[in-house]
Amino acid sequence: MKRRDLLAALALPPLAALVPGCAQTPALRGTGDLGLVVERAAGSVVVVDTSARAVLGRVGGLGDLSHASAVFSRDGRYAYVFGRDGGLTKVDLLERRIAGRVMQAGNSIGGAISADGTLVAAQNYTPGGIKVFDAATLALVADVPAEVAPGQRSRVVGLVDLPGRRFAYSLFDADAIWITDCSDPAAPKTTKLGGIGRQPYDALVTPDGRHYVAGLFGEDGLALVDLWAEPLRARKVLSGYGRGQEPLPVYKMPHLRGWAVAGRRAYLPAIGRHEVLVVDTESWQEVGRIAVAGQPVFVMARPDGRQVWVNFAVPDYDRVQVIDTLTQQVVQTFSPGKAVLHLEFTPRGDAVWISSRDDHRVSVVDTASFTTLATLAVDSPSGIFFTSRANRLGM
Amino acid sequence: MKRRDLLAALALPPLAALVPGCAQTPALRGTGDLGLVVERAAGSVVVVDTSARAVLGRVGGLGDLSHASAVFSRDGRYAYVFGRDGGLTKVDLLERRIAGRVMQAGNSIGGAISADGTLVAAQNYTPGGIKVFDAATLALVADVPAEVAPGQRSRVVGLVDLPGRRFAYSLFDADAIWITDCSDPAAPKTTKLGGIGRQPYDALVTPDGRHYVAGLFGEDGLALVDLWAEPLRARKVLSGYGRGQEPLPVYKMPHLRGWAVAGRRAYLPAIGRHEVLVVDTESWQEVGRIAVAGQPVFVMARPDGRQVWVNFAVPDYDRVQVIDTLTQQVVQTFSPGKAVLHLEFTPRGDAVWISSRDDHRVSVVDTASFTTLATLAVDSPSGIFFTSRANRLGM
Repeated sequence: MKRRDLLAALALPPLAALVPGCAQTPALRGTGDLGLVVERAAGSVVVVDTSARAVLGRVGGLGDLSHASAVFSRDGRYAYVFGRDGGLTKVDLLERRIAGRVMQAGNSIGGAISADGTLVAAQNYTPGGIKVFDAATLALVADVPAEVAPGQRSRVVGLVDLPGRRFAYSLFDADAIWITDCSDPAAPKTTKLGGIGRQPYDALVTPDGRHYVAGLFGEDGLALVDLWAEPLRARKVLSGYGRGQEPLPVYKMPHLRGWAVAGRRAYLPAIGRHEVLVVDTESWQEVGRIAVAGQPVFVMARPDGRQVWVNFAVPDYDRVQVIDTLTQQVVQTFSPGKAVLHLEFTPRGDAVWISSRDDHRVSVVDTASFTTLATLAVDSPSGIFFTSRANRLGM
Repeated sequence: MKRRDLLAALALPPLAALVPGCAQTPALRGTGDLGLVVERAAGSVVVVDTSARAVLGRVGGLGDLSHASAVFSRDGRYAYVFGRDGGLTKVDLLERRIAGRVMQAGNSIGGAISADGTLVAAQNYTPGGIKVFDAATLALVADVPAEVAPGQRSRVVGLVDLPGRRFAYSLFDADAIWITDCSDPAAPKTTKLGGIGRQPYDALVTPDGRHYVAGLFGEDGLALVDLWAEPLRARKVLSGYGRGQEPLPVYKMPHLRGWAVAGRRAYLPAIGRHEVLVVDTESWQEVGRIAVAGQPVFVMARPDGRQVWVNFAVPDYDRVQVIDTLTQQVVQTFSPGKAVLHLEFTPRGDAVWISSRDDHRVSVVDTASFTTLATLAVDSPSGIFFTSRANRLGM
């Protein structure tokens, strides 16, 4: 019997199928240019390649993604997607499948990953508090209820990572900012700052990890904590800024995480007004206002800080404007599509990806020429997140 | 004949070897936590994993790596290693093999990659000029000789990437700074700034891509170009800084690329003196000096800017010092090993990797506690480069 016939007689399955880990293995590739776009309505994400400007595939079954966000493992292979329904899903961007999933709360509003990449934390409305998971296994390693009185918990907002396995967050119902150190996850230590101002509704940390800033819903102004100072304390800044005394209708609360810090200035969405506020980050005083085309939602700096891009609430949400930070002027206004929900810059800022929910389109725009480099078909796209976030503080 | 016996009779090679692209394919993994360490004496690099804090493998045959540096493809899979002998080697970090190599000059001193990741540029002493290569194929796409008189070329130093396929560099022998726009690589356009000061010997661009700063060997001071201003011009700053009138012996010229920018301050190695200079990056005036343990070589900021780490020239090159930028005090002094040549921070700054050439060791140190987390055996290690550099301007 000839060798060829022997092989035929054996009716061998395709060779690749016999080799563990080979047959279904996608081609080897880097992960530095990967990302995902949330398909808000379908409960799925598409994995994208920012070099090819293309959709690589889709991963479904992620639950309610109506206010979803994502963080990334430090190797860039996995995304952790936080769903509104409390689902936390670990998505393998290379194999494009769900690598793990837990229902960790009833109502959740995002999360963070520790600076060393070992811990993933979720901020929850119901039950109020944060939960911390092993980034590899999604096993629960710490549970910090935001208990403000016996049996009474606060909703948690504005969760960010700080250096050293620490997380900062705000308690909407308790006028507090808490900082939890999970160096030993079995015994988390929480520093509690009370009386920081009424109803913190969102927050951010500056790119250097120094200043934690919470927006206040219940009064004018913002609460600021200098995380490099000892002892930690919150102080009130920008008393003219806040929502409290604001008579104008607010169509959508701005996202504080979208705040742009460029050089020593921060660019903030005014609440209710068609303005972007300019703030000096040393004095935390307002130093200017820039008129824009609507109520700003996201105000985001290109990574080099030379430009700030702005999208808007209803009814101006088909538009995007670009501010030149050197001249403080709007230098570009355009309409990439209906219902612009989010923007994400490529790591070095040569391009920006923009989601237009109601046109089911993501546009890739050159930030120097403002030409559209590509458009991608995505079902009701909302948040766009690139793996380069793994390398940045407070993302 | 039983199936098992049939298989034995066939003396099949390992199944994996029969499947194209499988047998030699390493396991699928992300590239966000990869990097390389140059083995200066052996002409090789080791590929490292910053999550496992381990050496994954070695790639040899890279030529003279006595002053080698590296940049990374935007997907994080490939390193471009610039050798002193003019060799440009593309290393596949996943497969741990040479993916391409060209001898592009006789004497070279480093390179850069364009913001969009498509072009790799090398700066050359002999013949003087820059050469630009297709990042995918290493095909030469542009050659810009630094011709300063008929038949006379300058050595090129201080090459950095700028936004928009542009590169800035300095001409040591022509007292000039050139900026070449390779938007159309077939027709590069070069802006030439002359009379910038005598003998620029190295340069950097600030992390926001705005200021290009060249150190001067032939006179006191530095040449500064504000790349956001029109028209471009160079001006002299820090006239007390330079090498020109310096009577002290200089054991090793500091690396300007190592300069730390933290907040609005830059920390610079003093030349010849046991000091780190503190400079305000708005006025470009000196605002302080910090006494350190020797002549500083690299002065590098932790990514959050809270700490600045310093290594030293002979005879103090076994030591490392850490400056707290809030208090401007040295807060730590230690000796990780003999002949500390380079430092590299993990992307979010939780750890730093330090090469000790004469102890053939790389130490991984926790930047909060200063404890040594791991030591790796590496042959005469010099430069350490992590893939996160792909996401940053001017690296």
